[in-house]
Amino acid sequence: MKKLINDPAHVVETALAGMAIAHPELRVDAKQRVVVRGDAPVPGKVGLVSGGGSGHEPLHAGFVGLGMLDAACPGEIFTSPVPDQILAATAAVNAGAGVLHIVKNYTGDVLNFEMAAELAEAESGGAVRAVVVNDDVAVRDSLYTAGRRGVGATVILEKMAGAAAEQGRPLEEVARVAEAVNADSRSMGVALTSCTVPAAGHPTFELGENEMEIGVGIHGEPGRERVALAPAREVADMLVQPLLADLPFQRGDRVLCFLNGLGGTPLIELYVMFDEVARILRGNGIEIARSLVGPYITSLEMAGCSVTLTKLDDELVRLWDAPVRTPALRWGV
Amino acid sequence: MKKLINDPAHVVETALAGMAIAHPELRVDAKQRVVVRGDAPVPGKVGLVSGGGSGHEPLHAGFVGLGMLDAACPGEIFTSPVPDQILAATAAVNAGAGVLHIVKNYTGDVLNFEMAAELAEAESGGAVRAVVVNDDVAVRDSLYTAGRRGVGATVILEKMAGAAAEQGRPLEEVARVAEAVNADSRSMGVALTSCTVPAAGHPTFELGENEMEIGVGIHGEPGRERVALAPAREVADMLVQPLLADLPFQRGDRVLCFLNGLGGTPLIELYVMFDEVARILRGNGIEIARSLVGPYITSLEMAGCSVTLTKLDDELVRLWDAPVRTPALRWGV
Repeated sequence: MKKLINDPAHVVETALAGMAIAHPELRVDAKQRVVVRGDAPVPGKVGLVSGGGSGHEPLHAGFVGLGMLDAACPGEIFTSPVPDQILAATAAVNAGAGVLHIVKNYTGDVLNFEMAAELAEAESGGAVRAVVVNDDVAVRDSLYTAGRRGVGATVILEKMAGAAAEQGRPLEEVARVAEAVNADSRSMGVALTSCTVPAAGHPTFELGENEMEIGVGIHGEPGRERVALAPAREVADMLVQPLLADLPFQRGDRVLCFLNGLGGTPLIELYVMFDEVARILRGNGIEIARSLVGPYITSLEMAGCSVTLTKLDDELVRLWDAPVRTPALRWGV
Repeated sequence: MKKLINDPAHVVETALAGMAIAHPELRVDAKQRVVVRGDAPVPGKVGLVSGGGSGHEPLHAGFVGLGMLDAACPGEIFTSPVPDQILAATAAVNAGAGVLHIVKNYTGDVLNFEMAAELAEAESGGAVRAVVVNDDVAVRDSLYTAGRRGVGATVILEKMAGAAAEQGRPLEEVARVAEAVNADSRSMGVALTSCTVPAAGHPTFELGENEMEIGVGIHGEPGRERVALAPAREVADMLVQPLLADLPFQRGDRVLCFLNGLGGTPLIELYVMFDEVARILRGNGIEIARSLVGPYITSLEMAGCSVTLTKLDDELVRLWDAPVRTPALRWGV
């Protein structure tokens, strides 16, 4: 295992300690593993909390800040945060306007966020709502999930719901935006290699020298099929056609096209893939009105990518374009 | 070779075609391989041009835009751009106030930029100056370089000189800022794995399962020594002590600490390394006044990182903080 770490058991805390120094505008509790926007709780504002297993950086802690999340609680690598963490994050951002939990659809995450929400409501009396992200069209059920997994749409949803909250909209409105983004987003990924969880010390799964996993999950869960390596234009087809079939997107639709790197794939390849994805969308009369290209929801050093399409209307475009100031996504401020 | 590409001979063009769609605010000539800021030439402004081999993305094309580069010319992977490309980029950003070439110190790059500068001056009569970046302390001479190689400081220099140019400063002033940043920056990197140039189809060099290359170049050039894998805190020592010895930095200095990922190393490990680097700096009485953590000057999918320290004064802090709007670095706008 070739990794720039010390003790495999303390990777998350040490990384959070590094984040604290690199981003003094955040409040990082490396011990309790909660990352909070420096000015939280923001009076009158709905608080947005997300979290999940570590190893997907910059998700989620890299998206804490103005116009996006108020707090993130990173679990162990590829492991749900515990209810206490989520409760602490929820309390830290509760300004009396309610809190929205953004939860990727993995069984452990969903249960722990539910438990934390109950505890938070009992403690503070404030309202806590949850949106469960389930945009991955690859498989119906998966290794850690009943129903579809939550993947790339999480980034888009955190940005857009974050913008709605920043505008001072009430909890039900922010939750409506979040639900709308989830309902109108679809994702699928491909792995060219596995990755190695530090505490395990060996690759999560094995892929032959000439194989790739279409529809892989962000923890290396099996996807739709294992196929022979193919050129980027064929891989793009394998990823995009299922998205178009599922929503379904229609001629004339505008989309946000998010070409995400899983960690080990260089940016130059992501732009090659983006060109191929754009060609398919153009052929289907779909306009790329906004785009995002880079490693934003990763699987440690896994080589591969995922494509997320979010159908846009004028409101979602405005929410996407609104100012954001986080370690990983920043514009307008 | 597991890569998301089509024909290995056309990776750069296809990636540039993808960039053109993802970043409509840039003018991308995928055929001539020149990426220009959309509003260039900006009247009265010194034009900043950089370039070099591809495979280091987001460097350089990802740094084109307001407050940073006016144009970039990407060569083949790990290969200098040709003089014609550099000439075209220079002409495209020449607003009559002169053009600054930012050149990493590799023999091919230096020669081709010099030739392009002569041609540009002969054609337009406008002044062209060059700054050669040579911040890598690892080795005195290298595989493709007489003298020290140019690495991470390039990113910092492009940002700060770009801000100076954006303020309307004259060519000699912008060049002075660039020279100052280069003079006060030092870098060193480590590779845990090699990378594979698509046209070659096999890894550039071999590293044993328990080895790492201290002082590696961004094209896989040999560094200072090949040593056994070590914990992050020891790796940080091996990278930072030579930087401190070389400048030398002193107690009370403020620095920008740039922890760069070489491509294949996950962000969570970069933050672990950042924490260790910060510990060493603190122990030496050096203050991290600004920081940058992420994959900004990469070597395809190479696993590893580099550390760049830039000694700051008030002027450089202001130039770093100034607004920037590029695909890879953006704030304030």
